[in-house]
Amino acid sequence: MGEERKAGEQAAEAAARAAEQARELQDAAAALLSRTWAEEEALRRRAAALREDLARLRKAAANAQTEKVHEDLDRASCLISDGDIAAILPSKAHGTFLKLLLGPVNLRARKEVQLKVKEEYNSYRDRTAIVFLGFPMILLFLRSWLWNGCFPALPVQLYQAWLLLLYTTLALRENILRVNGSDIRPWWVCHHYCAMLMALVSLTWGIKGQPDCARKQRGVELFLCWAVMQGFAMMLQNRYQRQRLYTRIALGKAKRMDVVWGETAGVEGQLLLLCPILFLLQVFEGYVGFLLLRTAHRGIIPEWQVVVCGILLIAMAIGNF
Amino acid sequence: MGEERKAGEQAAEAAARAAEQARELQDAAAALLSRTWAEEEALRRRAAALREDLARLRKAAANAQTEKVHEDLDRASCLISDGDIAAILPSKAHGTFLKLLLGPVNLRARKEVQLKVKEEYNSYRDRTAIVFLGFPMILLFLRSWLWNGCFPALPVQLYQAWLLLLYTTLALRENILRVNGSDIRPWWVCHHYCAMLMALVSLTWGIKGQPDCARKQRGVELFLCWAVMQGFAMMLQNRYQRQRLYTRIALGKAKRMDVVWGETAGVEGQLLLLCPILFLLQVFEGYVGFLLLRTAHRGIIPEWQVVVCGILLIAMAIGNF
Repeated sequence: MGEERKAGEQAAEAAARAAEQARELQDAAAALLSRTWAEEEALRRRAAALREDLARLRKAAANAQTEKVHEDLDRASCLISDGDIAAILPSKAHGTFLKLLLGPVNLRARKEVQLKVKEEYNSYRDRTAIVFLGFPMILLFLRSWLWNGCFPALPVQLYQAWLLLLYTTLALRENILRVNGSDIRPWWVCHHYCAMLMALVSLTWGIKGQPDCARKQRGVELFLCWAVMQGFAMMLQNRYQRQRLYTRIALGKAKRMDVVWGETAGVEGQLLLLCPILFLLQVFEGYVGFLLLRTAHRGIIPEWQVVVCGILLIAMAIGNF
Repeated sequence: MGEERKAGEQAAEAAARAAEQARELQDAAAALLSRTWAEEEALRRRAAALREDLARLRKAAANAQTEKVHEDLDRASCLISDGDIAAILPSKAHGTFLKLLLGPVNLRARKEVQLKVKEEYNSYRDRTAIVFLGFPMILLFLRSWLWNGCFPALPVQLYQAWLLLLYTTLALRENILRVNGSDIRPWWVCHHYCAMLMALVSLTWGIKGQPDCARKQRGVELFLCWAVMQGFAMMLQNRYQRQRLYTRIALGKAKRMDVVWGETAGVEGQLLLLCPILFLLQVFEGYVGFLLLRTAHRGIIPEWQVVVCGILLIAMAIGNF
């Protein structure tokens, strides 16, 4: 009995000690957090003051021709917006899309994570471009080889659902990159919202089967042809943008968090190679929209929405140039 | 000329000073970050050691009857997993869903943000439950009052698209809560993946119109009736879970980041009130599944998928009890 009591007392002591240690740990963590916050706040104030100075100096030096002044100012701005201090500065507002989908969570990442996020975004685009291109090619191939010229509904709808998923992930990731200081243009993200809507609408599009497939499925066929071209253009675009970005980062004209179409993007020689392909794509996109418009003679609403969406896409693609 | 030169020199000096300040700021930020990281790392090691101690003590005290020991150990565990130290500890793995949709971004929030995220999640559920309930009621009402017993496709598909959005946001937010230390049960999130799939499938479901609406749209009608009941159950559930959670937090049995269905959830008296409603809902869900199965006599694949999904939902809802 005595021994059992002793063991019980020892357990009680050990538990009390553990509780005490947990309290100490809690106090240490609280102290560290509040101290760090205070120091960060001081740095934030310094950064804000320096930013104001820079804006003033830049205005004053607008008509000065000395290369050195602009270089110094550029370097200072770059350090503030891309250096370690950037991890502490308040992030850009989240925007409605992120607030709706993710709630008020903090998406600002540390420097090393930021670059990983960007790298992962780029490799995600590379990987998906292959599916984007391959999936409709396989569908078109199987139609003539296996399905006797008639698409079954399920595989096409699987592709459309995948498109919806793809554009949702792209829109989410681009918004997160924006929060982390990348200067992706708003229309580039907006264009993906539009594509999300299009994918969603195309899902409601009821694919009709036999008889007379060739005529009824003309819209689907055109859509898939367009997807093949789009996938091809995406792969070219990815390669081109990445190459150009590396050049611009090396020249100090872009920040490391930029992904595509930096604010100061100028037209370079290489763009001439991509231009005709993108232009052709848009013409074809318009043609698809027109054909859909013509085949939608029954006045079914969803098909009309596809047309509206197509026209919107063209308008945005043209706005790109 | 001399004055202009002087102004130029002054500008160059100011720019050089600004660049110097930016460098200093960068160094200070880098130093702060690395120092903070080192201190956090030390605390992390202490927390890990204490956690091991606690596990050992808990095992040793498993058959001790002293209330005090368990109380001390519980308090210590709670401090580690819910105190300020939790903000520093490595977060749970993200899971495939978040990795796919958001990339490798850090979603661990600070303490005060975490609670905001949870509050926002709860209020989001409250707000959407109203739409969940109201939208199908309006549709059912308009059918008999305005549309002569025949649903037009667009409003129903709008509701289905909204459901897809709702379940996607819920799944995203719940995953984020999990990363931030909430112990939402995996099946609760899984159940929302399933609902996402169902909403997606229902979008491809082609709503047929005149003639003979009543028979053709029987499935849609049942689906909407089920949605009304589900919305009603959601509102009750939200209220009940929140109330119960407050009680459990007050009793120290739940962490503040828990949302629903804590690991240690026992059956309480109030659950008896909710039980029959949820049970009725599941019976009705099964009935909808059965009727869909019967009406899907044409063997169209999407309708079969709805049935499969419905059966899956029932299985999971039953698994709840």
